Amino acid sequence: MKAIIVSENKELIWADSEKPEISDNEVLIKIKATAVNRADVVQKKGFYPPPLGASEILGLECSGIIEAIGKNVKKRKVGEQVCALLAGGGYAQYASCPEEQAIPAPEGISLTNSASLPEVFATCWLNLFHEANMKENDIVLLHAGASGIGTAAIQLCNLFNCKSFVTASTHEKISYCIKLGAENGSLRSNKPFDDIKNWAPDGVDIILDPVGGSYFQDNLNVLSIEGRLLLIGLMGGTKSEINLGQVLMKRQKIIGSTIRARSSIVKGKVMNDLLEKVWPHFKSKKIKPIIYKTMSIENANQAHEIMEKDENIGKLVLKIN
Amino acid sequence: MKAIIVSENKELIWADSEKPEISDNEVLIKIKATAVNRADVVQKKGFYPPPLGASEILGLECSGIIEAIGKNVKKRKVGEQVCALLAGGGYAQYASCPEEQAIPAPEGISLTNSASLPEVFATCWLNLFHEANMKENDIVLLHAGASGIGTAAIQLCNLFNCKSFVTASTHEKISYCIKLGAENGSLRSNKPFDDIKNWAPDGVDIILDPVGGSYFQDNLNVLSIEGRLLLIGLMGGTKSEINLGQVLMKRQKIIGSTIRARSSIVKGKVMNDLLEKVWPHFKSKKIKPIIYKTMSIENANQAHEIMEKDENIGKLVLKIN
Repeated sequence: MKAIIVSENKELIWADSEKPEISDNEVLIKIKATAVNRADVVQKKGFYPPPLGASEILGLECSGIIEAIGKNVKKRKVGEQVCALLAGGGYAQYASCPEEQAIPAPEGISLTNSASLPEVFATCWLNLFHEANMKENDIVLLHAGASGIGTAAIQLCNLFNCKSFVTASTHEKISYCIKLGAENGSLRSNKPFDDIKNWAPDGVDIILDPVGGSYFQDNLNVLSIEGRLLLIGLMGGTKSEINLGQVLMKRQKIIGSTIRARSSIVKGKVMNDLLEKVWPHFKSKKIKPIIYKTMSIENANQAHEIMEKDENIGKLVLKIN
Repeated sequence: MKAIIVSENKELIWADSEKPEISDNEVLIKIKATAVNRADVVQKKGFYPPPLGASEILGLECSGIIEAIGKNVKKRKVGEQVCALLAGGGYAQYASCPEEQAIPAPEGISLTNSASLPEVFATCWLNLFHEANMKENDIVLLHAGASGIGTAAIQLCNLFNCKSFVTASTHEKISYCIKLGAENGSLRSNKPFDDIKNWAPDGVDIILDPVGGSYFQDNLNVLSIEGRLLLIGLMGGTKSEINLGQVLMKRQKIIGSTIRARSSIVKGKVMNDLLEKVWPHFKSKKIKPIIYKTMSIENANQAHEIMEKDENIGKLVLKIN
């Protein structure tokens, strides 16, 4: 098969690669499309090695048709149109994964576009619901609100009657987020935490934060009593000071959370929740995939460049023939 | 009635005070005994004001007999022997609290001794089970293992088949904790974190920590993947640095947790859990109150001195006539 290989000078090259084999509980997917995540860029640069046993090929999600199943597979069948959460291997013509991580593509969404859904919706669902126990009327702060994760989170907040506030790098992105359903937003460069305090004087209940170090103390300062800070990335560095007096007296929670290295049991629970509680809303058009651009996998370098320049609103989809 | 009043020079004086009134959902308890908590010492010194609406009198727990009930009280009745978790007011002849916070004293334990149970068992239950989701075979680190909270936590770990390791200030305390069921322990003064790493090479699942700042980074270093650090006190200061890279990649949780300011709903759930899941084990003698000394309430100053000098193993009970 063909797959993306990372050259020594970090170019993405569509080249021959070995077709994956499947174990008894896995499915083999003939891939229709994959999508770009920031983690792919970090992995390409050598800073995010895949978890033990995962494919070395980039790509944390895909859509496609099931071509083969292991002998213990019960829920999935050959010929089914699925989208899947992968620990790696999506930038290829074929990928394998445990059956729990592949679920039917949502009705009403093309198979190509459904490649944009697994990683961001699974990450948001895991964090907002499993980790932060989001409830109706919660007040949610979304940093990088126009990212794939941000645009998925805005829509989930709307769907479950929670208010969201975004930070983003441009006015255009903030306007987009507000049209999508965020209540308000603030420029990253323009003291966003003052605006956040004005927006939520009693504090925000949940923060979904890919920034880390440079936002950490400000995040805790705007977090409410019993608020949850979900740390999902480190774009702003790893080091900070912490005031434990505030954490204790406000009974705050700081939760480090990545989805990639989790067990297929956890991933399967999240994917099943998406299938039951989120996928039906694509059909009813209450939510939609937010896709900035769809390109051919041969143009993966350009797609990465768009993400590295932080130009995209929503996802970058890569079609595979 | 009589109650402890804090004088200007921070002496505890048994003096006349106003008998509490009860609201419709509260019970009035004629107190048989109360017990000392570190929070009482901090409150006496003026650093831990009671939550809004709570009694100004010291005392977070008591045992006694229900003397009156509000008109909406359903579970408790006059004449019942109870022990209760209080937001304040235990150092007195009478105290009031929402009915959910008073539960029958455990069978097989004297009413006086049952005054030692509510605060430490509720704190441990809330943190280990509600907050940290403790499961069989979890590996638990207990700082201040010989304290009231520590000795309750050791016993709960045993009861639910979890291994515990303690830190404490003297060899005598560590020996006591090991006899009580801790698997091992280390002196606070003797690089305990090296011992902890040797004891649990893959890290500890849960840390119950009243120390805070001075232990914070070491705590995170010995915490396992998906480990939970429960911050319940700040005896070692409030400030620290934090390595968010570790928190993220290990998917760790840092949880600030005090019980005093929580709603009576949360406290009631915890007390009900204790009644159903812990109290029966006092009767079967699998667990026991750990009481260092029982004194008269008139000697509250001496009791506080013992706690301030960190001499006690387990609880200090104060009898009230």
